[in-house]
Amino acid sequence: MTSFASFAALRAACLDLPAADGGAATVAISRDATLTKPPRSLGRLEDTVFWLAEWQGRNPPRLDRIEVLVFAGNHGVVAQGVSAFPASVTAQMVANFSAGGAAINQLSRVASAHLRVIPLALDRPTADFTREPAMTEPEFLAAVVAGYGAVSPEADLVCLGEMGIGNTTAAAAIAAALFGGGGMRWAGRGTGLDDTGVARKRAVIDAALDRHQGVLADPLRVAATFGGRELAALLGAALAARHRRIPVLLDGFVCTAAVAPLAKLRPDALAHTLAGHVSAEAGHRALLDELGLPPLLDLGMRLGEASGAAVAALILRAALACHTGMATFGEAGVSEKL
Amino acid sequence: MTSFASFAALRAACLDLPAADGGAATVAISRDATLTKPPRSLGRLEDTVFWLAEWQGRNPPRLDRIEVLVFAGNHGVVAQGVSAFPASVTAQMVANFSAGGAAINQLSRVASAHLRVIPLALDRPTADFTREPAMTEPEFLAAVVAGYGAVSPEADLVCLGEMGIGNTTAAAAIAAALFGGGGMRWAGRGTGLDDTGVARKRAVIDAALDRHQGVLADPLRVAATFGGRELAALLGAALAARHRRIPVLLDGFVCTAAVAPLAKLRPDALAHTLAGHVSAEAGHRALLDELGLPPLLDLGMRLGEASGAAVAALILRAALACHTGMATFGEAGVSEKL
Repeated sequence: MTSFASFAALRAACLDLPAADGGAATVAISRDATLTKPPRSLGRLEDTVFWLAEWQGRNPPRLDRIEVLVFAGNHGVVAQGVSAFPASVTAQMVANFSAGGAAINQLSRVASAHLRVIPLALDRPTADFTREPAMTEPEFLAAVVAGYGAVSPEADLVCLGEMGIGNTTAAAAIAAALFGGGGMRWAGRGTGLDDTGVARKRAVIDAALDRHQGVLADPLRVAATFGGRELAALLGAALAARHRRIPVLLDGFVCTAAVAPLAKLRPDALAHTLAGHVSAEAGHRALLDELGLPPLLDLGMRLGEASGAAVAALILRAALACHTGMATFGEAGVSEKL
Repeated sequence: MTSFASFAALRAACLDLPAADGGAATVAISRDATLTKPPRSLGRLEDTVFWLAEWQGRNPPRLDRIEVLVFAGNHGVVAQGVSAFPASVTAQMVANFSAGGAAINQLSRVASAHLRVIPLALDRPTADFTREPAMTEPEFLAAVVAGYGAVSPEADLVCLGEMGIGNTTAAAAIAAALFGGGGMRWAGRGTGLDDTGVARKRAVIDAALDRHQGVLADPLRVAATFGGRELAALLGAALAARHRRIPVLLDGFVCTAAVAPLAKLRPDALAHTLAGHVSAEAGHRALLDELGLPPLLDLGMRLGEASGAAVAALILRAALACHTGMATFGEAGVSEKL
């Protein structure tokens, strides 16, 4: 089992990344050009197939096994009154996932995806990051390893998501630490804060940025200081997928913020990821812009749980069905362009 | 079998439309509020369920039978050099649909939808509308009736689409006739015109608008003069669906232009329709804006064949699965908002 002994060891692993298989993409592009449709007329459906091919290293790519991984954690910063729901809801929702009653259960079924929920020490919330770093180095690395180990080598695609009351505050703090702009730019309503709550959330983030100025230049320390176990696990899972060249669909604001430190360490670190959607949570569009990740869907969702990624997986299934199932001009006896 | 004896009879049918069932929508909204998620956190997924409920007149709505209807026709205006593909491709693609080799075959399968392709007198193209009206009144009405009759009363949702070399020129002319702005505003690349081709297409549209000024105030005569059989059938199918309160997913530019005359006759005539996507074809976004139809997807597609509508049907399946399958706060023992 992979483990990381220190920030330095993890950083080294984050810098040692395989490239995409350009040859597989070329084969996919060549086949696409023969299919009975005008060139480029399936738009982003075509691009997603090329992306699947170049990361899986084969054409046609496969979506026989789609895995949805939802990591859950609790956050000391909820003591600052930054969530509309009580912290007990994290464990209650994990039970709801197990019982099959949450949105992601239904969406995984529709997408024919395998759902795994990984709760991370829910009875031990991270520290309140307005007072001290959310996690120690060993706590952070253990959560990264939990995420890293959750990715099956057999997966054709991984959809990443999270559950954690208070975690849009952690995500906003990470985004602010990495990209600037403070609480004003990144704090949103989360599960449903009113204006007073959002103002409090902004102030909490700004105070924490001020307290922890010493870590802002180090993306992994940012993740440990402001993040949470489920965010650290998402970073680990995205890294594992890259090491195994498994394409990843990202979910919303928290998921994107969780993996953003990887892109700060190495600009191409998220090339194997696609933003499944842009969330209605305030900072997500700006964060995707910072990362150069154009979202596939824009449906006003802001649930988390990998819900947006799972819906986006349906688009990938549609795209792949066209690529593998369509006739060529030659096979169908259809005339080509004049 | 429904028939329309004249423009006047069809106009009367277009003005006599049932309303949505507000009661069913209220039931759907009430259930949604009990589900284990923050309010509104599934965004447009929630809206689509309410829309399905209010048009089907029941909650939960059903998607047991999704029908994809693709109408095909040929266009005399192709003599003016307005398409990148030869007119023979329309019949060749209809054969490809029958053989299962087109994009819409694959997308219908992924959406578990029933595909029907209805070719309309492919061996008798409409007249070249730069010289005379594309269709006579009886020709137009016969095509409307063909579309009207193609909608099964048992359908839970209808996805509408088309195939017809030259039909983005017809669609652009209809859009220009109804909403102004001439060829400049509405002519796009279609299946792949170069700049010279687009300039020619614009000029063709402007010349036709000039020739047929007398019909511009009458939406049904606009449809007959500039349209085509497959566009008239789409108008008929959308009308039939409304009369039967069956919700409709629209496809791209041609499909939207085909049903736009209904909205000119009665502003709420397309309330039972949802724009499945916004196409990359130049005029589609402006046309959806004119009609007040925000698209569900924006994937750069511009194929037609109901392809965008079929992909959007996947989003509706995801939305309905959440609505029917999720646990309530009470069932799951999850705490509600603080």
